[in-house]
Amino acid sequence: MPELQRIHGGNLTRAAARYGIPAARLIDFSANINPLGPSPRAIRAVVGALDQVRHYPDPDCTELRAALAAYLGAREERILMGNGAAELIYLLVRVLGCRRAIIPTPTFCEYAMAVASCGGVVEKAPMPEEEGFCLPVEKINKMLPGADILFICNPNNPTGRVVETGLITEILDRAEQCGVTVVVDEAFMDFVPERERYSMVSAAGVRPNLVVLYSLTKFFGIPGLRLGAMLAPPGLAARLALAKDPWNVNALAQAAGVAGLRDVDYMEATRRLVLEEKRFLFDRLASLKGVQPLPGAANFLLVKVSETGAGSGQLTDRLGRRGVLVRDCAGFTGLAGRYLRLAVKTRPENEKLLTVLQEILEEIA
Amino acid sequence: MPELQRIHGGNLTRAAARYGIPAARLIDFSANINPLGPSPRAIRAVVGALDQVRHYPDPDCTELRAALAAYLGAREERILMGNGAAELIYLLVRVLGCRRAIIPTPTFCEYAMAVASCGGVVEKAPMPEEEGFCLPVEKINKMLPGADILFICNPNNPTGRVVETGLITEILDRAEQCGVTVVVDEAFMDFVPERERYSMVSAAGVRPNLVVLYSLTKFFGIPGLRLGAMLAPPGLAARLALAKDPWNVNALAQAAGVAGLRDVDYMEATRRLVLEEKRFLFDRLASLKGVQPLPGAANFLLVKVSETGAGSGQLTDRLGRRGVLVRDCAGFTGLAGRYLRLAVKTRPENEKLLTVLQEILEEIA
Repeated sequence: MPELQRIHGGNLTRAAARYGIPAARLIDFSANINPLGPSPRAIRAVVGALDQVRHYPDPDCTELRAALAAYLGAREERILMGNGAAELIYLLVRVLGCRRAIIPTPTFCEYAMAVASCGGVVEKAPMPEEEGFCLPVEKINKMLPGADILFICNPNNPTGRVVETGLITEILDRAEQCGVTVVVDEAFMDFVPERERYSMVSAAGVRPNLVVLYSLTKFFGIPGLRLGAMLAPPGLAARLALAKDPWNVNALAQAAGVAGLRDVDYMEATRRLVLEEKRFLFDRLASLKGVQPLPGAANFLLVKVSETGAGSGQLTDRLGRRGVLVRDCAGFTGLAGRYLRLAVKTRPENEKLLTVLQEILEEIA
Repeated sequence: MPELQRIHGGNLTRAAARYGIPAARLIDFSANINPLGPSPRAIRAVVGALDQVRHYPDPDCTELRAALAAYLGAREERILMGNGAAELIYLLVRVLGCRRAIIPTPTFCEYAMAVASCGGVVEKAPMPEEEGFCLPVEKINKMLPGADILFICNPNNPTGRVVETGLITEILDRAEQCGVTVVVDEAFMDFVPERERYSMVSAAGVRPNLVVLYSLTKFFGIPGLRLGAMLAPPGLAARLALAKDPWNVNALAQAAGVAGLRDVDYMEATRRLVLEEKRFLFDRLASLKGVQPLPGAANFLLVKVSETGAGSGQLTDRLGRRGVLVRDCAGFTGLAGRYLRLAVKTRPENEKLLTVLQEILEEIA
């Protein structure tokens, strides 16, 4: 798989080694995680569950699935929990036996990695910069015959673009005729205001060719614990459950998930903070010479830096050496060297980023 | 997969519901976990790492692989860490593309589940009771041509039988000629006295067709956290790493693993306790009318109960209703209805089991 690159944000171990700065002193804008960190109730639940690590985790995730079903308004039996959504991507591709997958790009690289790991072929449906990174519905509809899977990341990582349910339903109809499974990855949907306009959760389990991926990693601030979910039609959900190992979701992640899903105050505070800080960060970035943030629906911003006189790699490296990690989008199809992806964080952290970035831009000029 | 049964011990959630007893009040002999529970140092390490759950786990498991390499005397680059050994079984079968697998039975059911989940066929190599559940080396050697994978669980779950390296090497030589990968699952090897007589770890990464599975779940008492490893030849290890999602091992499991592997006192105390209590449990079980424990090398005992006048299912159920969970071996090939598997636990727990079992036997008589 020579053309595939697995590069991700959030690798503090490697960044610490690369920049010679202890991981604890790095400010990480390269991973799109809730800036508040985990809910204090989730952490208390983890501490309360420590005595449970001596037992196998509940393979059925009984309490967690009930809590998630209530939160999403979905039926429990259609939910399959995963060791992060990433595990479920690989599981799904393997069980569906994907020979040909359609992937609108630029997007999260693990879809293509999973397809390649099963010997499948990826056909990219480009979402060009000059068309605003929009989902190319007509192009996709033409590509559907003969495909097995279509991945739609909504909101899309790294562009932050979001698609309304109407458009996805249109694709879904056509895909159903062609026997294509549509996987809508809603890993960042919790950050989107008016999620009902965008989320396909209510159709999951009803439409025979729709799978919705969901993550508790980002919004609930627990990537280190690993927790994701998949909503699938009943038959497929049962096949998936049989094709994975039984204890994939660890006990502490289950406890944290249950507690987080019940912490309504934390969820509201998160949405408020991300909205406010995204606006702040967007405005301040837009005021920097040569820096162009794109409006985005999630908790991160895609930022064009090609007019600054420096490439994205150079900026990433200079920021890193000062302890500020950002995601160089060089590895994303169509973004080479021109874009950074920045997570929205707390005000002091965002200000630190802006200050350091401004200093670097002045040095370059 | 109608003939496949996925039944495991250690499902406290289901047992609590079934017997109407709170999970915390059940004594679990059905899962083969270190009776001491996790190392206190591992739990302290988990608490110390709680702040890390807001970050992605280290995908390379840098510190953990170094600690495990030192402990096993293996080379780091040949170690792949997993979300429990179970994940790695599924990953391996998928990457090797298993069409025909040889599995000596009775044994751990997830090998067959994994093979079936990839559409492969399982050929059983029976280890009959009347032959002492010995590994049928000659039979296996005859079956090797045309197979892809051979699984050897050593010590074997649920029989507790252990095989010396000489015999496995003999099979390995023949398997190499036939292009068969031999997977030796050493999940319970840490409990075996004189492990150097039995463990294939030193040959892993050297022999081109040998994969050794290792678990930190059982010996280190952390099944709820999930932690396993695989030692494989370099090329295969690299393919496996590409074919899985990057963040499969959660941050708290990594922290617990590193701390546990350094806790030499805990490891020694575990070996001492298990040896002593296994002897105690064996002797006391053997004195019960109709009960026949088999000598075993690991931290559990296979116990024949067919002479008690009750089937294994009936005994399991009666014990469960009194809060004592045991593993009914009905689902294991060749053991139907006649055997229980009992984990070795602490003295007070073992005495409780013996008391309750004796009461039940008297009721039946």
